[in-house]
Amino acid sequence: MKKLGLIAGKGKLPVLVANAAKEKAIEIISIAFTEQIGDELRPFSQKVYHYGVGQAEKIINTLKQEGVEYVIILGKVDKGIIFNKFSFDWRALKSLGRIRSGSDESLFSAIKEELGKDGLKLLDQTLFLQDYLAKKGVLTSRRPTNKEWQDVEFGFQIAKEIGRLDIGQTIVVKDRTVLAVEAIEGTDEAIRRGCHFSNGNAVVVKVSRPHQDFLLDAPTVGSQTIETMKEGRASVLALEAGKTLIVDLAKMIYQANQANIAIVGI
Amino acid sequence: MKKLGLIAGKGKLPVLVANAAKEKAIEIISIAFTEQIGDELRPFSQKVYHYGVGQAEKIINTLKQEGVEYVIILGKVDKGIIFNKFSFDWRALKSLGRIRSGSDESLFSAIKEELGKDGLKLLDQTLFLQDYLAKKGVLTSRRPTNKEWQDVEFGFQIAKEIGRLDIGQTIVVKDRTVLAVEAIEGTDEAIRRGCHFSNGNAVVVKVSRPHQDFLLDAPTVGSQTIETMKEGRASVLALEAGKTLIVDLAKMIYQANQANIAIVGI
Repeated sequence: MKKLGLIAGKGKLPVLVANAAKEKAIEIISIAFTEQIGDELRPFSQKVYHYGVGQAEKIINTLKQEGVEYVIILGKVDKGIIFNKFSFDWRALKSLGRIRSGSDESLFSAIKEELGKDGLKLLDQTLFLQDYLAKKGVLTSRRPTNKEWQDVEFGFQIAKEIGRLDIGQTIVVKDRTVLAVEAIEGTDEAIRRGCHFSNGNAVVVKVSRPHQDFLLDAPTVGSQTIETMKEGRASVLALEAGKTLIVDLAKMIYQANQANIAIVGI
Repeated sequence: MKKLGLIAGKGKLPVLVANAAKEKAIEIISIAFTEQIGDELRPFSQKVYHYGVGQAEKIINTLKQEGVEYVIILGKVDKGIIFNKFSFDWRALKSLGRIRSGSDESLFSAIKEELGKDGLKLLDQTLFLQDYLAKKGVLTSRRPTNKEWQDVEFGFQIAKEIGRLDIGQTIVVKDRTVLAVEAIEGTDEAIRRGCHFSNGNAVVVKVSRPHQDFLLDAPTVGSQTIETMKEGRASVLALEAGKTLIVDLAKMIYQANQANIAIVGI
């Protein structure tokens, strides 16, 4: 691979990928969804274009004209933008019209199909981020207690079932009881709700779906996750090893140690 | 059965049961958790006692002294009372100490075991409430659209899986996407959350668990359910026929018709 198209939303992941790809002497053409994202990617990119999320036609044509064959899409996109129909061009709308359900799987296969029509190949989000995947074992000073390990194991089973049903990736448990299941409200809100009903010491488990699409939706945690857990007095964060991306690992571990939270890869 | 012990929390179900049992010339000994509940049950009861939720010893002794053999427990109990350890007597605490997890199943088997020790037999909450179980078919003027029927069927499958995992009874879906899964936050909050992410026209599905304990936890809906759905601009309420209790059916149907909501038993 000599050239990589990077279609980038908010957050730290796009910069991490751009940095890792540049170190391998890969040329990067960035499509940034906002000016700010573009500014962050400029030092690593040969060219930076600014397009809206829904401008599928322009994005695809630009990448083709630049001679791009391989593409990585990642970073967060504000829901407000996604659900604003006026921000979609005809090609994006036609593609969305074929979506069978609102599930991620359905949305993602539409995106892949659309890119594929023009010969663009989507690469796994974690391809350049192997160093950022959660490792097996306890990552913090604090280790889970025996009781907490039981909750981690119980929670892992349940979370995998929830993932299999294509509902969400995160659950909150305590005393082998499910306090919150994430659907589309997002990880932080699910953690907040579970903690609210826990009276402290909740265990948060985040896993990949059995059919997780790492091309478009690798499970990700960052320092915000620990911040939310700290506010809710949660005690353990369990992540599926080798499948969950950790942004700012050092900061997360520092925060977790300060808050007496255990982080484990399972 | 000549005598029935009715251990009663808040809501309309205890009065409905007391009324139905009295019509069958069954004598009722009520244990009311608050003065107000006691006042509501007095017209139907031979005697009314007031005890706290945690006064297991007093409740059991009283029922035995009254010659009660069969018991129905139902009605809501404020969570604040349940989780206040000072409100439990030694017998209740000893019983709670044996609970393996915080799940309903575990709590319920402890209660049954404790009653059983003194020869008290727990009866199904729906025993006197057969007329109040949801029936198959459309109960409202408005029928679900084809698309909504698809969501009802999709939601029913998912809700059954969520029940099988002993997580909750209610889910909210739209466009074959799960918007909210109820864990321990309660039906109304799950509906509110799902509706918030639906932008209108959400489908609410409530089912029994495959191992639902109708002795202590029959799925129940009432006019509050429709009220919450109306606020969230939801469009369909689907209930498992023959397994879900409907309190104030007439009022619910009136409200649903006013709000253009469809109620179906499936």
